[in-house]
Amino acid sequence: MDQNFTLDPRLAAETVLVCDLPLCRILLMDDARFPWLVLVPRLPGLSELNDLAARERNTLMEEISTCANILREVAPCDKLNIGALGNIVRQLHVHVVARVEGDAAWPGPVWGSGAPKPYDDNWRGGMIRALRTRLGLD
Amino acid sequence: MDQNFTLDPRLAAETVLVCDLPLCRILLMDDARFPWLVLVPRLPGLSELNDLAARERNTLMEEISTCANILREVAPCDKLNIGALGNIVRQLHVHVVARVEGDAAWPGPVWGSGAPKPYDDNWRGGMIRALRTRLGLD
Repeated sequence: MDQNFTLDPRLAAETVLVCDLPLCRILLMDDARFPWLVLVPRLPGLSELNDLAARERNTLMEEISTCANILREVAPCDKLNIGALGNIVRQLHVHVVARVEGDAAWPGPVWGSGAPKPYDDNWRGGMIRALRTRLGLD
Repeated sequence: MDQNFTLDPRLAAETVLVCDLPLCRILLMDDARFPWLVLVPRLPGLSELNDLAARERNTLMEEISTCANILREVAPCDKLNIGALGNIVRQLHVHVVARVEGDAAWPGPVWGSGAPKPYDDNWRGGMIRALRTRLGLD
């Protein structure tokens, strides 16, 4: 599946790698304001959900569901926000964000809201380990 | 499936009915700035994707895909935006929005962006008919 897949450089610059699931590369947005995963299907040339086959869309939905569950386990969450926008970065990617009432963008969307606040190294590392543990990877 | 399902009054006030698909009620957001469908699974007590069973999530994904396809057929679209937020209205609902470069919120998200501009009656009726025709309903 990875053949010819290249992660968009902007997504790469804003995130750190968590792991690869069967379809998607799972990334943690490096923004301590919001616990925020990004799922990128590892197939070339995708920009819309409908560029995936039906079977792949179902796999994507299950990986979204898995990521939503683990994110809620490692971070406070009053409401999940899930979105596939791509107005700026066209490579198909899905955001899974844990929102807390009163967070930096509440109740608005996180996209385009203020400047990212990178994690400190310990916190970032702890998030990655906690996510990987719940995925059964470490 | 409809038993005990009630559409959130805020969603009802902002939209007009297109039709019911097997899982979801399909609504057109009454906002001429953005061609915008809202899918509401017709089951009571849902607020997150993971409140659906896996089979229902797959049906939801296919209905999102269908709505994305028909929306692109009836409206200009440079990029689809798909999102399930629910920070304000907690009843599970999925937005499918046709975005055009330079539209009223471009490249930001539509949620929370400015005031809705209701369709005029002819345009609204034409949108509903065009959507229903492509769904094979009229």
